[in-house]
Amino acid sequence: MSTTPSASAADPAAGAAVKAADRAHVFHSWSAQGLIDPLPIAGAEGSYFWDYDGNRYLDFSSQLVNTNIGHQHPKVVAAIQEQAAKLCTLAPGFAVDVRSEAARLIAERTPGDLDKIFFTNGGAEAVENAVRMARLHTGRSKVLSTYRSYHGATAAAINLTGDPRRWPSDTASAGVVHFWGPFLYRSPFHAENEAQECERALAHLEQTIAFEGPQSIAAIILETVPGTAGIMVPPPGYLAGVREICDRHGIVFILDEVMAGFGRTGQWFAADHFGVTPDLLTFAKGVNSGYVPLGGVAISAEIAATFDQRPYPGGLTYSGHPLACASAVATINAMAEERIVENAAEIGEKVIGPALREIAERHPSVGEVRGLGVFWALDLVKNKETREPLVPYNASGAANAPMGAFAAACKRGGLWPFVNMNRTHVVPACTITEAEAKEGLAALDEALTAADAHTDAA
Amino acid sequence: MSTTPSASAADPAAGAAVKAADRAHVFHSWSAQGLIDPLPIAGAEGSYFWDYDGNRYLDFSSQLVNTNIGHQHPKVVAAIQEQAAKLCTLAPGFAVDVRSEAARLIAERTPGDLDKIFFTNGGAEAVENAVRMARLHTGRSKVLSTYRSYHGATAAAINLTGDPRRWPSDTASAGVVHFWGPFLYRSPFHAENEAQECERALAHLEQTIAFEGPQSIAAIILETVPGTAGIMVPPPGYLAGVREICDRHGIVFILDEVMAGFGRTGQWFAADHFGVTPDLLTFAKGVNSGYVPLGGVAISAEIAATFDQRPYPGGLTYSGHPLACASAVATINAMAEERIVENAAEIGEKVIGPALREIAERHPSVGEVRGLGVFWALDLVKNKETREPLVPYNASGAANAPMGAFAAACKRGGLWPFVNMNRTHVVPACTITEAEAKEGLAALDEALTAADAHTDAA
Repeated sequence: MSTTPSASAADPAAGAAVKAADRAHVFHSWSAQGLIDPLPIAGAEGSYFWDYDGNRYLDFSSQLVNTNIGHQHPKVVAAIQEQAAKLCTLAPGFAVDVRSEAARLIAERTPGDLDKIFFTNGGAEAVENAVRMARLHTGRSKVLSTYRSYHGATAAAINLTGDPRRWPSDTASAGVVHFWGPFLYRSPFHAENEAQECERALAHLEQTIAFEGPQSIAAIILETVPGTAGIMVPPPGYLAGVREICDRHGIVFILDEVMAGFGRTGQWFAADHFGVTPDLLTFAKGVNSGYVPLGGVAISAEIAATFDQRPYPGGLTYSGHPLACASAVATINAMAEERIVENAAEIGEKVIGPALREIAERHPSVGEVRGLGVFWALDLVKNKETREPLVPYNASGAANAPMGAFAAACKRGGLWPFVNMNRTHVVPACTITEAEAKEGLAALDEALTAADAHTDAA
Repeated sequence: MSTTPSASAADPAAGAAVKAADRAHVFHSWSAQGLIDPLPIAGAEGSYFWDYDGNRYLDFSSQLVNTNIGHQHPKVVAAIQEQAAKLCTLAPGFAVDVRSEAARLIAERTPGDLDKIFFTNGGAEAVENAVRMARLHTGRSKVLSTYRSYHGATAAAINLTGDPRRWPSDTASAGVVHFWGPFLYRSPFHAENEAQECERALAHLEQTIAFEGPQSIAAIILETVPGTAGIMVPPPGYLAGVREICDRHGIVFILDEVMAGFGRTGQWFAADHFGVTPDLLTFAKGVNSGYVPLGGVAISAEIAATFDQRPYPGGLTYSGHPLACASAVATINAMAEERIVENAAEIGEKVIGPALREIAERHPSVGEVRGLGVFWALDLVKNKETREPLVPYNASGAANAPMGAFAAACKRGGLWPFVNMNRTHVVPACTITEAEAKEGLAALDEALTAADAHTDAA
């Protein structure tokens, strides 16, 4: 396969057939089925994917921020092929070489004593099980999570989520309490600097716990760096402060690293930036770049011990799926051998960060740039002074037209963007080269003029 | 790979290493981690798998009743290898050839107008999404399910479940009401024949609905043939009766075919035996025999139309995963080409059913034999007259010793059994040959003497 599919590979008739079959029978996630027009995709490699009409896109979304190792990494593809020939599936009750090895490689990288791995099929199930463990470990029921968060779409996970995707599935009685995390640019605490934001956010959490009753709270769950909600890197001291609060009240601290983990932030886990060890850490996506569905929970020694003589009451047919585990082993080993986590850190620090800050200066629509590694958000605004978002919270239809225009401009420029509300996230593969990053940043720069046109400055 | 691994393939040291690594880092489903001793498995093919000590087992469990096509079917393995080389993963928003084709092949087989397919990673997520669809479609909240059922382990799914696995994760406020399904052998309605059991079970459901308030009930979910709960084939007329009750009250009828679907009962779907079309049908396991994690919901035209102009508020990163869909395409095509569903029906009717009935006559421990296709249960009892179960409901430890002795005897005889409470299920691959079935039935016959020893007759 060539890295640049030639236009001769174009086959619009085949693409039309794929789309017609899709429209006849595929029901899509998070969509009004009659209002979508899914682009048929013919192939992908590295930082790119392409359609049937000869258009190639630089993937600044990593699909749903999962292909950390890029598309079709040859070592991972080969590992899947080899494991498929050997043993595709086996029940969770057995021991299997690749399951053991995947667990070992993950445990080797997770912080502190998070050395037992419970495998699931994805992030939502990881969160479901982390919450179950916390509730049974503490004998308490409430779980605290933040507004501006996403934790998955199964019942417990969607109730924990703090964005509008929760609303239609909300269960008022789910035992979830939402509080506010730190976010200086749109501070819920009227703070003027990071230290103040941190201090006030911790005081807010303390007070929420006091009024909810600490003895009723099983867990606090945070995305280490909130992802789809806006890539708000927490201020120094915040996560350590939450850790201390949890310890003081006997509350289980869960870090959700489904999106932030496995290299995305330029460390194996985002928690590594902050020197904080949670009691439970959820992962998915980057663990094997989603080549085979896989997620899981890394469990502290203390919580694992709770289920040493007492059965853990949760499971699933494909827990520790051999094909998924083999792809995780190959992914983690390739990331280590090829210094892919280091690449994410370097590209973020030397290329993406500086370029985005420079772009922000020139574009009236860019209110703030924030992030690290290959995990960046541009907060788009109508007005840099007032920080009014370019589109209202949860806008759709005509109200969301400015973001639609921006996204369309990206695609015309050969860039596939990640767009959520008034933000675009720059979340390419951790394997992205400097040249590819620059190509994408140039396309982004160009496309932002479409956003600028909707600002007060226009 | 030979179909009979030679003893020379034994490598106990390798097995010990796999187990040691497992014990160091793998946290297992549904288990007290300190009390388990996971058997390391070296390989599998067709109806067999084997360990590192030269022991081969005839798989009468199909792992967790998922390998309907047997282990390592060459066509499915090849399809996974080919798709891995082409495109492992892609976000749900795009159209992909194998996703379209998998949806088409499933829709072609599901009953009635269940022609839109929402893909998930497994059965629990399928149930979660079916329930969400039903609640939003009706604007109602309660869901009715049966005792003696299993629907998955995420929050909504485990609350629907009617076995003890629900208890530790129970949320009294989850909007679930449990009722009793038909089960003549242990009739909740004191019925004396199938027609009476059917009539009384429907009356019980009608009355439960009347007292819960029909206008508050979004859905009734049933396993078409309850699986782990005991393979209770519903009496003629029951499912049609539930369908009629649902229609009369505007209640969504969900059939859970995660275990019963894709050939297990000797039809593509168990619903085909009863001529009943639900509004939503959940599937997983047999759709691709679990070679890659996959599940989903087949959706009626009416419910799909609810989400035509209004976004469906649910999703997951790996919805319609290309590698999983490619394995489903190959599985379904191979099952059709090789008449695997027909084989399941024939082996059930001509070999397994007659043999089990004959075994039941000779063994004081076998109270009832029930099932169809390759989906059979032996209800083990202390006393055939009183029908007292061989072990108490949800027994563990010493109280469960009779079932433990039976399972150990099976394994000594080279048979891997499926055991749940006081039952063993005969649930081999749909591809099982007559000779393999007879080999397994002979081992089962022998092992039942260990159960007989715990009956009143002993």
